[in-house]
Order: sequence, then structure tokens, then C-alpha cells
Amino acid sequence: MVALGGGHGLFASLSALRLMSDRLTAVVTVADDGGSSGRLRAEMDVLPPGDLRMALSALCDDTEWGRTWRDLLQHRFHSQGSLDQHAVGNLLIVALWELLGDTVTGLDWVGRLLGARGRVLPMASVPLAIEADLVDVAAGPEAAPHVVRGQSAVATAPGRVREVRLIPDDPPACPEAVAAVDAADWVVLGPGSWFTSVMPHLLVPELSAALHRTTARRCLTLNLSDESGETHGMTANDHLSALQAHAPELRFDVVVADPTVIEDIEQLQAHCTALGARLLLRQVGVGDGTARHDALRLAAAYRDAFEGFLGDVGTSAR
Amino acid sequence: MVALGGGHGLFASLSALRLMSDRLTAVVTVADDGGSSGRLRAEMDVLPPGDLRMALSALCDDTEWGRTWRDLLQHRFHSQGSLDQHAVGNLLIVALWELLGDTVTGLDWVGRLLGARGRVLPMASVPLAIEADLVDVAAGPEAAPHVVRGQSAVATAPGRVREVRLIPDDPPACPEAVAAVDAADWVVLGPGSWFTSVMPHLLVPELSAALHRTTARRCLTLNLSDESGETHGMTANDHLSALQAHAPELRFDVVVADPTVIEDIEQLQAHCTALGARLLLRQVGVGDGTARHDALRLAAAYRDAFEGFLGDVGTSAR
Repeated sequence: MVALGGGHGLFASLSALRLMSDRLTAVVTVADDGGSSGRLRAEMDVLPPGDLRMALSALCDDTEWGRTWRDLLQHRFHSQGSLDQHAVGNLLIVALWELLGDTVTGLDWVGRLLGARGRVLPMASVPLAIEADLVDVAAGPEAAPHVVRGQSAVATAPGRVREVRLIPDDPPACPEAVAAVDAADWVVLGPGSWFTSVMPHLLVPELSAALHRTTARRCLTLNLSDESGETHGMTANDHLSALQAHAPELRFDVVVADPTVIEDIEQLQAHCTALGARLLLRQVGVGDGTARHDALRLAAAYRDAFEGFLGDVGTSAR
Repeated sequence: MVALGGGHGLFASLSALRLMSDRLTAVVTVADDGGSSGRLRAEMDVLPPGDLRMALSALCDDTEWGRTWRDLLQHRFHSQGSLDQHAVGNLLIVALWELLGDTVTGLDWVGRLLGARGRVLPMASVPLAIEADLVDVAAGPEAAPHVVRGQSAVATAPGRVREVRLIPDDPPACPEAVAAVDAADWVVLGPGSWFTSVMPHLLVPELSAALHRTTARRCLTLNLSDESGETHGMTANDHLSALQAHAPELRFDVVVADPTVIEDIEQLQAHCTALGARLLLRQVGVGDGTARHDALRLAAAYRDAFEGFLGDVGTSAR
């Protein structure tokens, strides 16, 4: 199984998938330019490690060892000095890159040290920037888009994203990530920040080609909330439309969505059918009004998605 | 077995002792104020982690896992920014202190993560400073001493150390370190920077009391070189005299010395006899003119020191 994404969304899918398999591969965005990752990227000229660290921490076992490692990776220093807010896992990853001289070998060693239930790979071999065209919705449909550059800027800028691009626009994919997608039984895209964590995978040419050609079945996981800046006001259907605009040929086998956050289920059902996908509606959120996924519920939803379920017999996917 | 010291000297004794036992306890100076440790101490208000890191890395197994951990702990970042020269192990130790809220628990977890063959403890529960009275030897025996403060300053200042003190002068010992000395079969003091890594253990009142009262046998390991700044020009006998001046009641069972660096063996023999100690002369250095110990030779010397050897029968200790 291969899960693609970044940040908290990928953390959620991996936290669920690791309950089903210990042969996971996570393929992770490397376009972050904010916080600890942004500072390390600027200071050390390396891939931003933050999303890779999040994925590694999601693959820690639920044992005292695994929990301590997870907490250690995620821990941020608190000081009045230059270490303040650096995440320990970011420093550990960068250190192993310096020590071993290779991105994938370094990540494999971090995974080995902490006993990760799978492998974490970057989607590209070079650090990326994200650039987006945004329009001011209040200014009407004819308003001219303006360009915003940088993942953290795109994620928080007001306005509706029309198009997202990578800089450079033809980055080399991580070969091991391409091979993992080609060899997978299932690939899982999303949930996550739609334009800055999910879509970028479709903008790395070799990785996008692998996602299109793989014999693996494809699962798309929709988000629990439209509250984040970059997709504010977008419905589930808007999310699918944005994905189609950037990868019109890509088909899915199943789309997992939480019915409590879907405005128009009939429209979403039609949209999924057009994508070749079965719509699987399950409550996968914690249900406290936040956008947090419940790992056990999401795992059970993936079980239904991957293996079918009795409710499929003679009924709709609902 | 308990080994006391700091820096490269303690690294050498632990590298040898771990070949004989996996129930080691290292008791480590916490007075460093230079380099990565000095910066962390100033920024985070913590014990300086550098000597603790060195001891932990000496306790790593000689397996791929252990060697990778050792190299990772010792690795220093290279950048044009604020992380430059920080040792990874220092950051890891400080992170676990922040995360777990307790010095000894944090160090025990670092040791557990890397599979250390023993335990590493600080000699005191609070960060210490070192202050020394130095005299200019060239100015004659009547020259007035001047005071130098700070481990890195004392270690490099020109002049002969007359007396060394801790600030505060009555620091609380680490209780686990005191208990380890009380329960030991053997305690090993030195090698190491004599005034800044070896002697400080005798200046922490509770630890010094434990070293005096313990039923353990005591082994003193002399240095391979008088080249370091703080002991420049001092003979092995001068080293013993300095120790006696700071702890006149302390007796040893055995003194390990490398005959290739001893100027006057008869005088050293007499000095050891006065201390209650057998003098064990063994080549324990690499023998390339540097002050580096050979872990296997030093381990064999400790075997002779702890268990006796056939050469003892009817002959001198030589």
C-alpha cells in the first residue's frame, strides 16, 4: 500500500493504514517553506523535513517505545534562542542526511531506528516551491487572478485557488516512490491540504505518470473540513473538480467521504461515478466538530474500501 | 562497575570497559561551558550535555546499529547558520529532558533507544562552573596565582594549576550516581583532563564521600600525554600529587599507567605504594605518538587490574 499526501492529512491516513499493514510506503510532499522546515531548508539547503517527520511519527508503533519515539520526533524545543520551535525529528532527519549522504538511505535509517511500520519517501528529489493563482471570490467571476508563491503563503492567503503549480515545474521524482506506486496493490491519495499537500503529487511528472499507469487500485480520501484557508468555502464536489482540472485522466476506484460534512450527497455520488469510483460514506471523523480523523474509524473505512463489505451485496455503496 | 570522568578520557575507559561488562555506570562531569554544550547550556538552562553524549556514544554496541547510533550522536551539523557545530546527540539529550522533565529518566531513555551497554549519569544535578588558581611557572615558585573561571578557559590557559574549585562549591550530587558508587565492585577514575574532567568528581561533596566510603576497589588510570594545556609539563607523579592535594584521604587499589610515557617509574612506584595501590604498567596507547587509547589494550589492562594475572605470582606488579 502506498499513501500519498503531506502534513496532518497524511498523518491521519497513515495512522489508519498502519493498523492494517506493516508494509506501507508513504510518499510525501517536499514543498514546505514555513516554520522549522523552512528554516532548515534555508540554512542547510536540504529537502524540508517536516512532512517526512510527520509521516514517520505516524508509522510509530503503539508501544511505549513507539509512543516515546513519536513524541520525541514531534517535540519542539522551547527556548529564547535559535533552537526555539525546531522539531527534534526534523533535526534527526537532516543529521542522517548529512551523515549518510543520501536522502532515501537517511530516511530508511530513521525508520529503522524508531521501528517504523513502513517506509517514508519524498515525492521529489529536490526541494520544491508551490505557486498558485488565486482569485478574490467577492470580486465576481471575472476578477483577474493574482499569483501567490510559497506553501505557507498559499495555505493562508485569502481567495479561491484556480490553479497550482510547482517550481521547478518538472522536478525529478524520487525513483523509489515511483517504483512503490508501480508495485502497489492500493494507492491512497488524501486527505490533506488540497492544493499544497494532495495535488502536488499530480504535478511531479514521473510520479503522476506512475499514478496514472499503475495497476494498483486508487482510493481518494476527502477532507473533513473546508475550514482551512486554501479551500475555504469549497464543497466536496469543488475538491473533486479541482483535482480533475489538474489531472483530467486520473480515475479512482473508491472515494471515501464522511457524510456528516457533505452538503450534496447525490451530486457527489454522480461526480464519483464520472470518476469511475464507488463512493464510500463513513463517519471517519472524531465527531467533535474539529477536522480530526479517528484512526480506528478511518481504518475500518479503508477495510471496507479495499476488501468490499456485505453492504455492497445488492445495495448501493452507501 | 562505575567509571568516572568526562570527555575523551571517559570515552576511552568506557570503550574498554564495555568489552568486559554490559552493566556499566558512567558518572560524568557537567561543567563544560564551551562549544555546542556551552551554547545549549546558555540557551536552554540545562546541564551541558556534551560529556554525557560522549559517554553514551562510547557505550554503543559494535554492530551496524550501534555504530550508526554512535556516529549520529557524535555528528555535528555543518551550516552557515545557528545549527552549525551542534552535536546531534546533545540536541537529542536536551529534547528528552524537555519531553520527560527529568534528567536521569531522559538519559536512561537515550541509552535505551540506542541500546547502550550501561547507564550514563551526571555527577551533579545542577550545571557547574570550574574555577582554578594558576601560576606562571616561568615567573618562579613565589609567583602569585591568578584565578581563571570556566572549563574551556581553564583547559587552555597557560600556567600551572595549583587548585581547582567548583561553583557552586557544594553542588547536590546525582543520587543515582552516589548509589552506583556505593554498590560498585570497582570504580575507575580517569583517564582524562586532570583538573577539568577527573578531579571535579572529588569536589562534589556527596560523590566524594561515596568514593571514600565505598567497599568497591578503586582503579586510577593515568593519562597518555601531558600535552593538553591544563597539565602541560606535569609528570605522572605530578598528576598523583595534584590528586592527593585535593583528596588526601583517598586510597586506590591499582594505578594503571603506560610505561612509554612515564619518566621516572621508580618514583611512580613509590608514589603508588604510598596511595595503597599496586602499579600496573601496560602499553594501553595506540602507540603512534598521539594520546589515543587502544580500547582492546586498555580492556586487557583492566582485566589484569581487576582479576589479577599470573605475573603477580612471586613477582612485582610489573
